[in-house]
Amino acid sequence: MPAVPKHRQPIINAAVTLFRRQGFARTGLNDIVDVSGAPKGSLYHYFPEGKSSIAVAAVEEAGRRVTATVAKLAEECGSTGELLRAHARLLAGWMRGSGFRNGCPITTVLLELAPRERAVTDAGRKAYAARIALLRDRLMADGFARPRAETLAVLCTSALQGALIQARVERSGRPIEITAAELARLIEVEAER
Amino acid sequence: MPAVPKHRQPIINAAVTLFRRQGFARTGLNDIVDVSGAPKGSLYHYFPEGKSSIAVAAVEEAGRRVTATVAKLAEECGSTGELLRAHARLLAGWMRGSGFRNGCPITTVLLELAPRERAVTDAGRKAYAARIALLRDRLMADGFARPRAETLAVLCTSALQGALIQARVERSGRPIEITAAELARLIEVEAER
Repeated sequence: MPAVPKHRQPIINAAVTLFRRQGFARTGLNDIVDVSGAPKGSLYHYFPEGKSSIAVAAVEEAGRRVTATVAKLAEECGSTGELLRAHARLLAGWMRGSGFRNGCPITTVLLELAPRERAVTDAGRKAYAARIALLRDRLMADGFARPRAETLAVLCTSALQGALIQARVERSGRPIEITAAELARLIEVEAER
Repeated sequence: MPAVPKHRQPIINAAVTLFRRQGFARTGLNDIVDVSGAPKGSLYHYFPEGKSSIAVAAVEEAGRRVTATVAKLAEECGSTGELLRAHARLLAGWMRGSGFRNGCPITTVLLELAPRERAVTDAGRKAYAARIALLRDRLMADGFARPRAETLAVLCTSALQGALIQARVERSGRPIEITAAELARLIEVEAER
């Protein structure tokens, strides 16, 4: 059966959705086929190496989405503090909308597979690096020198990632909003010094 | 076969180790039996409801360990900043020692099972609450009013959790050390205001 190019993206999207909800190990190829609506043959066509190669594509896709969101917020928001609060509102809203089933689209699969699966780990590292670079640039625009902006960007990334886990356990967007608001406040104080 | 009480704890310890390394779904009951050294019968004796009830016990055990570590650090350290830096050194050392395979002992299993599995989710929430309470008390000892200490404690917990994920992907303790150092610095500035 000739595979149709249009099925690659639905397969990746389905994998992102399933991996973030229930993890990599629990998701079977049949689940991905079912959710994607793609014919099973196209899955083997695009991902002949199987589930690990789908995990790589899913982490890359999720990384692109997070980067696009942060880039858009960085453009719209006048400061890093504003960006963090806006991002938290978005994330908390998405979490609520999914009944707190959707966490970060890359965390679960990375924790299951990194550092054992090299290609997945590399995709995760690139996703983090892109996000950290955007935040660093936004922090530099706030007046922080590059080295400090870099370390603050690492903290911001850690904090929002961790908050998503707390939000799932508490079935509440509050940990995300509290984390971002505190971070924004601390960074604003620091920017004014 | 009468089950011997001494086998309950080794089973739980084995589950903590396996779940943090490779996740819940990928860990079979046989893996837990093998790593624990316990006879298979004792596993069914102590956990007749199977793997989910082992997950609850593992999250409770991991929560106790984290709480004990933070409580000890809170006693030893003169400030929250010092506590955060000391905790980061410990975590980074443990991560290095495991070849970056061991992350937070509860994160992976929570992301796989929460909020679907109610008892696991509740165990996770209690683990977070205990840790946040300890940090809140330490922050109050630094001079923060209770509501502020509470929100700062949520941020500290989020940030270290998230940093462990970055550390795994980067195969480096640096994201943990950077995150804690930045957080400590920001909190120290805020405490002096």
